Amino acid sequence: MTHPVPMTEIRRGEFLESWHSGHAVICDAGGDIVQSWGDPSLVVLPRSSSKMIQALPLITSGAADKAGLSTEQLALACASHTGAAIHTDRVQTWLDTLGLSDAALRCGPQEPSDLPARDGLIRAVETPCRYHNNCSGKHAGFLTLAQHLGAGPEYVEADHPVQKAALEAFERVTGETSPGFAIDGCSAPNFASTLHGMARAMAHYAASPDGSAERRLHEAMRLHPDLVAGEGNACTHLMRAMEGRVAIKTGAEGYYIAIIPEKKLGVALKIVDGTTRASECAIAAILVKLGVLEPDHPATRLYMNAPIVNRAGQQTGWIRPAAALA
Amino acid sequence: MTHPVPMTEIRRGEFLESWHSGHAVICDAGGDIVQSWGDPSLVVLPRSSSKMIQALPLITSGAADKAGLSTEQLALACASHTGAAIHTDRVQTWLDTLGLSDAALRCGPQEPSDLPARDGLIRAVETPCRYHNNCSGKHAGFLTLAQHLGAGPEYVEADHPVQKAALEAFERVTGETSPGFAIDGCSAPNFASTLHGMARAMAHYAASPDGSAERRLHEAMRLHPDLVAGEGNACTHLMRAMEGRVAIKTGAEGYYIAIIPEKKLGVALKIVDGTTRASECAIAAILVKLGVLEPDHPATRLYMNAPIVNRAGQQTGWIRPAAALA
Repeated sequence: MTHPVPMTEIRRGEFLESWHSGHAVICDAGGDIVQSWGDPSLVVLPRSSSKMIQALPLITSGAADKAGLSTEQLALACASHTGAAIHTDRVQTWLDTLGLSDAALRCGPQEPSDLPARDGLIRAVETPCRYHNNCSGKHAGFLTLAQHLGAGPEYVEADHPVQKAALEAFERVTGETSPGFAIDGCSAPNFASTLHGMARAMAHYAASPDGSAERRLHEAMRLHPDLVAGEGNACTHLMRAMEGRVAIKTGAEGYYIAIIPEKKLGVALKIVDGTTRASECAIAAILVKLGVLEPDHPATRLYMNAPIVNRAGQQTGWIRPAAALA
Repeated sequence: MTHPVPMTEIRRGEFLESWHSGHAVICDAGGDIVQSWGDPSLVVLPRSSSKMIQALPLITSGAADKAGLSTEQLALACASHTGAAIHTDRVQTWLDTLGLSDAALRCGPQEPSDLPARDGLIRAVETPCRYHNNCSGKHAGFLTLAQHLGAGPEYVEADHPVQKAALEAFERVTGETSPGFAIDGCSAPNFASTLHGMARAMAHYAASPDGSAERRLHEAMRLHPDLVAGEGNACTHLMRAMEGRVAIKTGAEGYYIAIIPEKKLGVALKIVDGTTRASECAIAAILVKLGVLEPDHPATRLYMNAPIVNRAGQQTGWIRPAAALA
């Protein structure tokens, strides 16, 4: 196996305090590797970076159009949201439309990372609901598809028609037979692929024609960066900075993808230690290298060459791309 | 430089999802290396793992005895606490005794990680104070020493007598000239050393005679594991599991130390990517290898071979020591 490549450095004063290594692939619409770092054949779970693939059958089945889903709902189906009111209000309305309640969701409850929402729950002495889970939009999409297919309520079981459709879509767009799956934080199966496979899938999205399911999903993401993540999150900040031209999506354990329609390129990267601060810095550096993100944009500077500020407000260090990405 | 060694693995289902590498040293009372992984000469900031060294001048100067500090206060001086009432009540009383208020602390405010304390502040619509900072006990110790020395209020300046004394203590117990310092999250200087130097210092503590300043500090830590960290934290869980025989202390960015008096051994370890889940697993594995922590103790199993449980309560994976530590 090719060793991972140092991608992100944490400096404190004059010292290199910590560093993160990873693997990354940039792929073109033909599925060929344009550039890579480390091992493109690394098999890894893409986690939430694959949500736009898990949402594909929602459109290809006709379920989204039959239910009249808006671009906001499609963006939420691809989201890892912060549990803010802009997310949970929409998911609750979506569940209402399906004639379902919070209990139909198979993700567990999660405290919102959005501070006003979190503090509101604490002050009301209420516990979080399942619709607060960062994946609740994906699950609302799964439920919409399950209803459309006339399938049962246990839609996160691997042999449920919803997950069979998700696997079929995953293997089709990655161009690989998935070696298997693991259970995600939200209880849904998460299918594994090589990094090359995920980059190939993202390039396929980038090159997808007008009106295709793939195009409709990344258009929805680019149109609603606030729904795909939320205030204070890298996906939202960086998609806004790129003014809707590029879709990006984080995944747990240091995964990140990018879909770049104007260049028909896809990117997949994995920080091997699973750290989000590093994957955010690395994806920003790659987007800058590709010329689609301004290096001096204030949002870019939150993740690439970002100051580390202590609790008294002093700058104590920096998060920087390592030499391979600088 | 010797490469870091894989120390902790994150498995999800059948997949190795993420992994963490690091360096570690076990040292004896003569300062010699008993066992090491990776590079003992790695220079790194020990962060809060050096608090029992930063507290040394508090005792050697006579300040602690003049102020009549209790073992609880000595434990707090070495603590990274959760901001629970058991910590903040004691720090506030300590400041009162010094005739000082929260404003005298030079650490910034920090939201408590203790959930009852956090939720109490949110419900009262109050912002955190400096005494909630996880380092507030260390700072109360610095203030006690500053008063004893008749020195000014800016005790985190590198040329302040308190920090000069901390550096002198650090170089004496590590047996090294420190190559420099960086500013910590709490605004105090944090002095760098090799991992060998920190392990040597911890072995020196382990072998220190009855009544010595070093012995009094690690005795206080072992006597009050709840004050050194707090409920839900590895330092507290694992020190309780070892029934007061071993002192351990986490530091930010993946540092950990252990002081093992019964074997006159010291341990220092650094996970290069700075991740606490990995340093907790690695220190537990080393303590098990050294025969001072029971592998089947419920507390051990929280950090070594710990289940990863998702938001719906399903086990989705494991955190395990890698081959080098298994």
